[in-house]
Amino acid sequence: MKFSNLFIPTTKETPSDATLPSHQFLIRAGFINQQGSGLYNYMPMGKIVLDKIRKIVKEELDEAGCSEVQLGFVTPIELWEKSERAEKMGKELLRIKDRKDNEFVLSPTNEEAMVELVKNRITSFKDLPVNLYQINTKFRDEARPRFGLMRGREFLMKDGYSFDDSVENMKISFDLMEKTYKKIFTRLGLDFRVVDADSGAIGGTGSKEFHVLADSGEDTILVCNSCEYGANIETIFESEEEINKLNELSYEELQEKEVEQKCSCGEKLSFKKGIEAGHIFQLGTTYSEALDAKFLDSNGKSQPFQMGTYGIGVSRIMAAVIEQSHDERGCIWTKETAPFMVDIIVSSAKKEDELNAGMKIYDDLKANGIEVMIDDRKKERFGFKMGDFELIGFPYAIVIGKKLQDGMVELINRKTGEKTDIALDDVIEAVKKLS
Amino acid sequence: MKFSNLFIPTTKETPSDATLPSHQFLIRAGFINQQGSGLYNYMPMGKIVLDKIRKIVKEELDEAGCSEVQLGFVTPIELWEKSERAEKMGKELLRIKDRKDNEFVLSPTNEEAMVELVKNRITSFKDLPVNLYQINTKFRDEARPRFGLMRGREFLMKDGYSFDDSVENMKISFDLMEKTYKKIFTRLGLDFRVVDADSGAIGGTGSKEFHVLADSGEDTILVCNSCEYGANIETIFESEEEINKLNELSYEELQEKEVEQKCSCGEKLSFKKGIEAGHIFQLGTTYSEALDAKFLDSNGKSQPFQMGTYGIGVSRIMAAVIEQSHDERGCIWTKETAPFMVDIIVSSAKKEDELNAGMKIYDDLKANGIEVMIDDRKKERFGFKMGDFELIGFPYAIVIGKKLQDGMVELINRKTGEKTDIALDDVIEAVKKLS
Repeated sequence: MKFSNLFIPTTKETPSDATLPSHQFLIRAGFINQQGSGLYNYMPMGKIVLDKIRKIVKEELDEAGCSEVQLGFVTPIELWEKSERAEKMGKELLRIKDRKDNEFVLSPTNEEAMVELVKNRITSFKDLPVNLYQINTKFRDEARPRFGLMRGREFLMKDGYSFDDSVENMKISFDLMEKTYKKIFTRLGLDFRVVDADSGAIGGTGSKEFHVLADSGEDTILVCNSCEYGANIETIFESEEEINKLNELSYEELQEKEVEQKCSCGEKLSFKKGIEAGHIFQLGTTYSEALDAKFLDSNGKSQPFQMGTYGIGVSRIMAAVIEQSHDERGCIWTKETAPFMVDIIVSSAKKEDELNAGMKIYDDLKANGIEVMIDDRKKERFGFKMGDFELIGFPYAIVIGKKLQDGMVELINRKTGEKTDIALDDVIEAVKKLS
Repeated sequence: MKFSNLFIPTTKETPSDATLPSHQFLIRAGFINQQGSGLYNYMPMGKIVLDKIRKIVKEELDEAGCSEVQLGFVTPIELWEKSERAEKMGKELLRIKDRKDNEFVLSPTNEEAMVELVKNRITSFKDLPVNLYQINTKFRDEARPRFGLMRGREFLMKDGYSFDDSVENMKISFDLMEKTYKKIFTRLGLDFRVVDADSGAIGGTGSKEFHVLADSGEDTILVCNSCEYGANIETIFESEEEINKLNELSYEELQEKEVEQKCSCGEKLSFKKGIEAGHIFQLGTTYSEALDAKFLDSNGKSQPFQMGTYGIGVSRIMAAVIEQSHDERGCIWTKETAPFMVDIIVSSAKKEDELNAGMKIYDDLKANGIEVMIDDRKKERFGFKMGDFELIGFPYAIVIGKKLQDGMVELINRKTGEKTDIALDDVIEAVKKLS
């Protein structure tokens, strides 16, 4: 893609309400912009990143045997009355009325609609298990929308639902989703922890959260220094006062706190801050009973479905990547989430030899399947282009500048800042090794 | 994909309100189901088809230099007040209020938001042209939602907007979109006509509709028997009475009507019925002026953007394909829109040799990049599987049955009904030739 052809409105202005790095940088680098309180537009590069995250989520879920569907975003209130969530969810559930005064809801999640979808369509234990998901717009009328994509009102979420014929099989579906979610977060290049999110009432594994580790995370979690174990502090501490106190501490303050409890493996636990980006939950028959959704078991007996529910905050992950990976100059995307892998910076695009050399590398990299951007803008100077590269956060840049007369270009690693001179003939191979 | 693994709830029951073939068959074949008045869910195969259409639209637009974005679905009423459409659009524009009593709209289209997006971000003629689009959920609170996906309330639409520095350049953008839309409709395998949709006030080319020809189409259009010309009857006939009369005639009655007018090429015109699935429109400065969105021209003078607006009914096309292509037994998908190209029908999946032969063909076709379904269901009989094949409308089936003992299978063309015996060794080559 040519920089001059894509609408990438980078800016130096930081929105006054933007306190988090992801909020500041995603707006300043032209990934998103705010349309209203908690409402965001994705500009071309933001849309590319969002689609990349979405694609990884879809690929791994499909690989695990899940099927994608797409439910109506506007759902009839009757569904929510049957499950009694119309009342329980309070004001976060935004109710609307159509021209005929019928009441609907902007879906914040879709347990009810999904149960209604399989009801009377899956009728035998022979057709189970089934795991259906969608990656679709959601709306939650947050009292205080803030932190950009992190806590918006309209957001993109993957919500999935498993249907099984027994508690044992539901747990198998649940374990498969835990495994699949781990693959997803690993592929996204994120440093994350799976933490227990309930106090063990259903065996300690009934509800797990996937936290992206980041100093700015809203949640305080406890993780083992040695094994994989992690837990939400709500599951470890009993007093609400203690929990609230911990939640108010900054990342730095938490690091200084000693933890009395030990991990079951014997090692020490320590506090971290996390961004909840995924949640898997053993649901049982709550919704299938409420909506009277049943199947015939092997004895010909009518039974409600045993369900699991699985969410991933797709647009929130876009922000979480940046919370985990940025510096004072801007974003640092992971390879799998970067809008483009390499930014070819033509130092002075008015100079024909520089532009030609850049275009040749551009064409060669594309031919080798590398996602590449070329900053071919004639009106912008080198320093400005470098600033945009750092703000946007492509993993690598290739600078075509003065060294070109010696047949050399410079390769820059955005994360480490490392700069390497490379002969023109070696550029393609060098970049291929990086990806 | 294995039939036994995908949730494809086919049914013999036709919804009482479904009068159009697409409405009946898409529901009966398990592509969609109704969630409320004018609200539909896409089940796994429906989602596959929707994504295929979406992908073709995106590929051709990107090829033409357009950039994809994603705007908030919920938009602040203020945007609509600036353009005065809050009032003009009447009740089709569904207004909602959030918990703080602020007013929003469920977007039926996005001219205002898109102008707001480029405003102050594109500031110079040097950055033009720009063509931004999204493929996103829309909502129109139709007084009488009907005909399934054809006239739903929540639907998937591609809406695109071009920004230029002069009327001449805006026309160039418009022409490029006409060319691109033709490519899209051609790739989708549709028989369509581009028709003039205004009376020539802006030169006769200011507004064009893309109609998928189908006997059940809601619109009456005039097309030339020889050249490419076509027109909406509103542009040809002046009296409203005459237009209404024509609109009430059935397809058959229209065929019998002589048309007095001749095409400018000298040939006869005749009436057709069409489904409007695309619309391109030279917009000028209506919205850029209303929202005060300007750029600096080459003389340093501030000018409002010259805009074009371009829509494609993505979910409507799913229905239009079936309106144009079906028989009394079900859907007949075009190759580019079919959920899978080939359905391998294992006549009796309990017989190991049949299932093995089917699985071998399945694996070989997949390895050759052919999208293939295998009906491996053990509990269903051959007749039932054939019924599902015809109802769902995969372009081809390969039947593994009795002839297997002679090393033969049967290839069925869903559209023509043609059946051909093929030796097992020749199946892959035969199918590769079809796609």
